[in-house]
Amino acid sequence: MIPSAAPVSREACVARDASDPTGALRDRFVIPDGVIYLDGNSLGPMPRAAVNTLNRTIEQEWGQDLIKSWNSAGWFDMPLRLGDRVGALIGAARGQTVVCDTTSINLYKTVHAAIGLRPDRDVVIAEAASFPTDLYIIEGAMTSAGRPMQRRLVGADGPSVEALLDERVAVVVLSQVDYRTGALLDVAAMTEKVHRAGALMVWDLCHSAGVIEVGFDRHAIDFAVGCTYKYLNGGPGSPAFVSVATAHQAAARHPLSGWWGHAAPFAFDRDFRPDAGIRRFLCGTPPIISLRGVDAALDALEGVEVAALRAKSLALTELFMTRLSALLPGLDIVTPREPSLRGSQVAIVFDHGYAVVQAMIERGVIGDFRAPDIMRFGFAPLYLRFQDVWDAAEMLAECVHAEVWRDPRYNQRLAVT
Amino acid sequence: MIPSAAPVSREACVARDASDPTGALRDRFVIPDGVIYLDGNSLGPMPRAAVNTLNRTIEQEWGQDLIKSWNSAGWFDMPLRLGDRVGALIGAARGQTVVCDTTSINLYKTVHAAIGLRPDRDVVIAEAASFPTDLYIIEGAMTSAGRPMQRRLVGADGPSVEALLDERVAVVVLSQVDYRTGALLDVAAMTEKVHRAGALMVWDLCHSAGVIEVGFDRHAIDFAVGCTYKYLNGGPGSPAFVSVATAHQAAARHPLSGWWGHAAPFAFDRDFRPDAGIRRFLCGTPPIISLRGVDAALDALEGVEVAALRAKSLALTELFMTRLSALLPGLDIVTPREPSLRGSQVAIVFDHGYAVVQAMIERGVIGDFRAPDIMRFGFAPLYLRFQDVWDAAEMLAECVHAEVWRDPRYNQRLAVT
Repeated sequence: MIPSAAPVSREACVARDASDPTGALRDRFVIPDGVIYLDGNSLGPMPRAAVNTLNRTIEQEWGQDLIKSWNSAGWFDMPLRLGDRVGALIGAARGQTVVCDTTSINLYKTVHAAIGLRPDRDVVIAEAASFPTDLYIIEGAMTSAGRPMQRRLVGADGPSVEALLDERVAVVVLSQVDYRTGALLDVAAMTEKVHRAGALMVWDLCHSAGVIEVGFDRHAIDFAVGCTYKYLNGGPGSPAFVSVATAHQAAARHPLSGWWGHAAPFAFDRDFRPDAGIRRFLCGTPPIISLRGVDAALDALEGVEVAALRAKSLALTELFMTRLSALLPGLDIVTPREPSLRGSQVAIVFDHGYAVVQAMIERGVIGDFRAPDIMRFGFAPLYLRFQDVWDAAEMLAECVHAEVWRDPRYNQRLAVT
Repeated sequence: MIPSAAPVSREACVARDASDPTGALRDRFVIPDGVIYLDGNSLGPMPRAAVNTLNRTIEQEWGQDLIKSWNSAGWFDMPLRLGDRVGALIGAARGQTVVCDTTSINLYKTVHAAIGLRPDRDVVIAEAASFPTDLYIIEGAMTSAGRPMQRRLVGADGPSVEALLDERVAVVVLSQVDYRTGALLDVAAMTEKVHRAGALMVWDLCHSAGVIEVGFDRHAIDFAVGCTYKYLNGGPGSPAFVSVATAHQAAARHPLSGWWGHAAPFAFDRDFRPDAGIRRFLCGTPPIISLRGVDAALDALEGVEVAALRAKSLALTELFMTRLSALLPGLDIVTPREPSLRGSQVAIVFDHGYAVVQAMIERGVIGDFRAPDIMRFGFAPLYLRFQDVWDAAEMLAECVHAEVWRDPRYNQRLAVT
């Protein structure tokens, strides 16, 4: 899918917004006045309908209906029902996805299960540049695997996955989109290579779910995990998802064997007997109110084709890069210009990146910064307009031209960056 | 603390409510009209202030302030801040408790850590009659311990903890209050016995936190876990807590090594290095909205002494049992009459218990049922009145006298019971 050429003026951006078939989706979200929000790859904004949905859960379901809401409000089935809805967005047929726990915990379950499914192999391949929790959790899963395991690291400056794949590799864990650079991996080709080596594939979809067609079933992915609070807009820290291919479910074991994963959770058996299907990837009682945020967020995606979002996302990032290259010719944009190689963000390496991002935030353009020197801007096609992208590029250039880093107040570090 | 004698008439109950120093706390909660809520040991009711607290988090912190709320609204520190507040209620000094994940997952962390702290021992003692997820999670923790472990079960009709304790026991996991019978264990004496045998103690406080003075520090408890949605009223599935004695923290390891447990979560190191303190028991990004429910719930406990709640709770359960014994002399109340031996609920074994509970619910008295034959009524002292207890006993007797189980509609089983 090739986006049409980037608009060449602010007026052209406004015109393009007016004719954009996905433009009306913006009304489904609350975007604060005066804000251009380029941080939806960190925390998605609130769907407008979430206020009512959450209020009903709080005041009616909890406040008035109390314990009976486990049945009457469908609380008990939410992890599966929401799982199927998320599954539809990543190309996974029903019964393969649940929404529960956190990305870290779900990654632990999948890596542990994958190691168990390859009992004669002792290597896990991970990315040196992955979001660190992936590395940390893989460490934890390896130490609790029941046999000695080794980690091999794919590096930006190190070996490739292909160079590391051999008959010792049990599982490969990769992020579809690099959280720093925004580089996109070829899920189809990579999964096939990994399978050809006899290993299993775990995809971290934190930066792709909701904005890129993943093709979980089409590419025969074994396991996937991801969060729901970035491009899915489920709310701060909303529960994560985990997808397990049907073919693996009956044999996939992990040690977080809580009662929600039991074949008969209300039989109160003495011994753990996992559910035959995807429910075995549940563990304990989920945080219902936060889970309802995911429900509201999926409502806001109702009737939306991920392919259309992907097309618009590519057009937005293309416009941003084109404008920046014109305004700041020497700028080191590290996100690939080739559409098939990038996700939904643009990353720029810049020495004074921290101060520039702070100055832009003060002026209403919210992006974020990743140490040591990356400015990161997410382009969520659900609510961003071409005019926003135009204005954001202008603002970035202004801050650079003004050398905002000379102002000490833009260099104060916050607890969470 | 010995509660005064049970009131002997409904009028006496009303009078006692009027003079009850904790009576005004009821106004802090939403109790639906016409409902006597005896299921706060399953899902606590909504604190009145929770609506505003949660709305502010949803509409202002998420909706308007977006990503900056991680700093400005204190989201990042909530697991520790709320942990210290819960810690105060169970007698744990600051820096020993966090609120995160689920009871099941926190139990996994503690059992795994305790096994690691006793490397020369290979037995875990658990209760045959514990809430099943405890048994299931202990199974999971044993299989991922890195060495062969055995489980020994304390039974209602089986051996005692004392009979099972020997030099092979690494850790003992017990519930302070039995979720079915309401029987209360002596935390001080039991913890001391376990320590004398060289083992570590994990207490499950799901049915005691917020209603019984636990004495975490006073009794030198090693680990404790519990939920926040029963007597703490944090909302459906609100995140759980885990407490770890300061002395164990530096050496306590578990494999759920997510970035929130890292010594420097924003340094984005390649290898996992756990925080020196209680933060190492965190894992991934917590569900902020559900976590804020815990915040509101702890606000509703502000200025309340757990000792006063315990005294009232004992008076309420005493009244219920006294009235029931008068109204239904042959009734099999399995909860101990001796105050020091019971928690905050009354359990009755009755063949037709399921139907009686359903009929009572239809009449506005909400209790619950635990298979195969236990009617369970929780008495939360924060919002229950003596008159409610009087009326509930009358209602139960009426349902039994009317033989409601002959009506088939009271025997329809729900998905979640």
